[in-house]
Amino acid sequence: MPDQRSRFDDLLRRLGEITDLRRISGLLSWDHETKMPPLGAPARAEQSATLARLTHELGTSAELGALLDELRDLEESSDHDSFEASVIRVARRDYEKERRIPGELRAEMSRAASLGYRAWLEARAAGDFEILRPNLDRRIALVHEYVACHEPFDDPYDVLLDDHEPGMRTADVAAVFARLKDELVPLVAGIGEPVDASCLYGDFPAEHLRQFSLAVLTCWGMDDRAWRLDDTVHPFAVGLSGSDIRITSHFDGESLIGLLSCLHEFGHGLYEHQIDERYSRTPLHDGASSGFHESQSRLWENIVGRGLSTWRFFYPRLQVAFPQQLEDVPLDVFHRALNRVAPGVSRMDADEVTYPLHIVLRFELERAMLAGDVTPADLPEAFAAKLREYLGVEPAGVVDGVLQDVHWSDSNFGYFPTYALGNVISVQLWERLIRDVPDLEQEFELGNFAPLREWLREHVHRWGRALTPPELLERAVGGPLDAEPYLAYLRSKVAALESS
Amino acid sequence: MPDQRSRFDDLLRRLGEITDLRRISGLLSWDHETKMPPLGAPARAEQSATLARLTHELGTSAELGALLDELRDLEESSDHDSFEASVIRVARRDYEKERRIPGELRAEMSRAASLGYRAWLEARAAGDFEILRPNLDRRIALVHEYVACHEPFDDPYDVLLDDHEPGMRTADVAAVFARLKDELVPLVAGIGEPVDASCLYGDFPAEHLRQFSLAVLTCWGMDDRAWRLDDTVHPFAVGLSGSDIRITSHFDGESLIGLLSCLHEFGHGLYEHQIDERYSRTPLHDGASSGFHESQSRLWENIVGRGLSTWRFFYPRLQVAFPQQLEDVPLDVFHRALNRVAPGVSRMDADEVTYPLHIVLRFELERAMLAGDVTPADLPEAFAAKLREYLGVEPAGVVDGVLQDVHWSDSNFGYFPTYALGNVISVQLWERLIRDVPDLEQEFELGNFAPLREWLREHVHRWGRALTPPELLERAVGGPLDAEPYLAYLRSKVAALESS
Repeated sequence: MPDQRSRFDDLLRRLGEITDLRRISGLLSWDHETKMPPLGAPARAEQSATLARLTHELGTSAELGALLDELRDLEESSDHDSFEASVIRVARRDYEKERRIPGELRAEMSRAASLGYRAWLEARAAGDFEILRPNLDRRIALVHEYVACHEPFDDPYDVLLDDHEPGMRTADVAAVFARLKDELVPLVAGIGEPVDASCLYGDFPAEHLRQFSLAVLTCWGMDDRAWRLDDTVHPFAVGLSGSDIRITSHFDGESLIGLLSCLHEFGHGLYEHQIDERYSRTPLHDGASSGFHESQSRLWENIVGRGLSTWRFFYPRLQVAFPQQLEDVPLDVFHRALNRVAPGVSRMDADEVTYPLHIVLRFELERAMLAGDVTPADLPEAFAAKLREYLGVEPAGVVDGVLQDVHWSDSNFGYFPTYALGNVISVQLWERLIRDVPDLEQEFELGNFAPLREWLREHVHRWGRALTPPELLERAVGGPLDAEPYLAYLRSKVAALESS
Repeated sequence: MPDQRSRFDDLLRRLGEITDLRRISGLLSWDHETKMPPLGAPARAEQSATLARLTHELGTSAELGALLDELRDLEESSDHDSFEASVIRVARRDYEKERRIPGELRAEMSRAASLGYRAWLEARAAGDFEILRPNLDRRIALVHEYVACHEPFDDPYDVLLDDHEPGMRTADVAAVFARLKDELVPLVAGIGEPVDASCLYGDFPAEHLRQFSLAVLTCWGMDDRAWRLDDTVHPFAVGLSGSDIRITSHFDGESLIGLLSCLHEFGHGLYEHQIDERYSRTPLHDGASSGFHESQSRLWENIVGRGLSTWRFFYPRLQVAFPQQLEDVPLDVFHRALNRVAPGVSRMDADEVTYPLHIVLRFELERAMLAGDVTPADLPEAFAAKLREYLGVEPAGVVDGVLQDVHWSDSNFGYFPTYALGNVISVQLWERLIRDVPDLEQEFELGNFAPLREWLREHVHRWGRALTPPELLERAVGGPLDAEPYLAYLRSKVAALESS
């Protein structure tokens, strides 16, 4: 089929350009959040909007649509997992979704995100939610416009969720979250006196902690020929190609928390880094879903990064790096501190057990905002009320409350739930992993994380977006999404703390 | 003319998009040379190429051409200096130039520049010109293709020069350079024992020098809400908007040289920063020419940055910053060291008197390469031969010789001459300045550089590209390009050193 071949090459050329623009857009965001001087924001908002409009134009061109039609034969005659079938399938899905959105709306959403981020920084600095509020009003108006492009739907939130967790329905998420809430609200309420975690706080100079974090990440597989670590307010990771991975953290100088966010972002970065190189410059070169992406960050941050075998290897090194703070703190005290369970106001600093409740409350608020039951003006109090109800805690002010997360200011709704889905998936993967690689944790004790990295590459990362999230999960663990292993893991975590 | 008005708005919208993409391209280069992990290079080359192709597409669209035609009436009925006439005039010039170039060639040039930069870094690290040579072969082939798009022309080099110094002819440059060479080769040969400049070398820790440099630049008008300073191998400046100015330097830890390159890049940055804000997102928001841009960097670096009144203010502060190195060095010894004249192999570190000869030799080599008289394979020896002939010096190897500059690897030919044109212009501006603002240097002694900044804003910067370089020069100094003030300035510099 020589004709099909040259059409497929034409498709790859077009997809290559679209992918390039998406990567460039990633660079703009990375720069915005790590390097850009603040007065650069208005021009940057225009630049982002122009890029979004052009990306949209390329991604919705009639020529691309015609090519995808003409390539149906090639897709159908190729194996489902083949490069050709996967590229055509995923490109068609993207094309059909993107065709629904007017280019001007894409540009406007991008401009609003850019300005919203800046307003969020200012609102936080001033401790004044009102600085952000008009941006949120604008964003919600845009969300409504965006959702309206997708009629008909069962639930308007389905539209937003689908951008992050393709194919998943709001009702599915609500069912999983109901299960989590039923189990975790009483579990959290019944937790006794939290363990002492004071060893994690104190004088941890930012530059020293960065060096130590880099040492851990290097041992895990980060390589500065292809990765960087920078400072930001709200940590994130972005892959500008499989060999240009940017992770960010925030070292506050007063705690070890910045280290944990490095471990989290490493998980995201490694995913991008280990996608099949052949997928570069195609829409396959990305995570299967946000939930899968979060499963990787949560796995490295929580299951590995708070694990005893990991710290058997790293803790003596941490003590050498911070002798004054840790010399007299035994490993088990440090390890228990790292796994402390105690309700708090902050999602980012939350322990593993209370974390999902932070997500549930955000999911509920997003749905309420979408339904018009909560307006941005109501948000600070609605946010505080949910914290009281689910976690029994009260934020000191808006900075610790509704302004703690960047997401509502700079991105669409629908992302938050994927954090908790990521937790669920991470434990399903972990259970499979320790069956497949029984001596995994012994290797951690020796500082060898390659077997974990390789398992993840083989069973998750390399696939990129070639498989749907349910397909990928089925192949990796042999079953569908299931919250029970995760709940069992959390229960045993609480029990371990109580018995020790 | 309501119809003309809406057409002009449409023009502004289109030019806004093109400007956005050019700025984004500036961000890609800045990132490439300051932050990007090395293995990101191949993907970045593709991203740059895609961006170049799209920029070209927007900049050559038939719709843009039709608009520019339809707007002739508005242009002709508006005052020459008006916003409308200036935008239409400059946009038409850009459009007509860009139409000559196939988009694929633009993409290819961009890709080659991206890869060339990386090869140059590698060639320098390995001290091996052969690593770069194939890239230069490729670049020269592309230069020939590019030049061929512009037939007919008097001299193929005119095509390249016009990209940097609009309207200027190779013959004009050659005449100015012949005058410089005639005067300077014997002047340099006749210089006696150079003054002692050892106080500029020694233990100057990079971080301390960066802090001191920032203090100087802040006093000069840099403001970290709109500017950044980063490290790179080959210093440069780029404006990502009038309020997002990125300058770079290289602090080697062993000398004060990095400070001088900060002062140089500040001059470029200030130019971008002080262009009329109304010109944002139009092609007017850029320097009038590379020569004018270099006139600003040379003025701040040399005339101000090596001036005695400047250092009457800053030197006591420099001594406080580096007491061990400078406490016992009197101001006049430091000032003479800073103004030392001595032939050397390096352009970047060259004194003001020998500097133009470094440029003349590069201009001659570029013309010879374009004519095929010198091939990239011949270049290391041809470069060394010119250094011997004009300056009586011999590079120790290729890193100090032909590989010292980034330009041939990452940009088109035609830029180098503008450095020396910048020197010429800078002295013309300075002579006018001290007539207009007689107490300028007394203000420098008090640390007040605002009068200089304001004169430059009013007479040069704010105009952006609205005036051609000869128009701008005529208005600023009342006459055409003239090398004589510059030569007189250099002669008096040599005389001052000899008499002291």
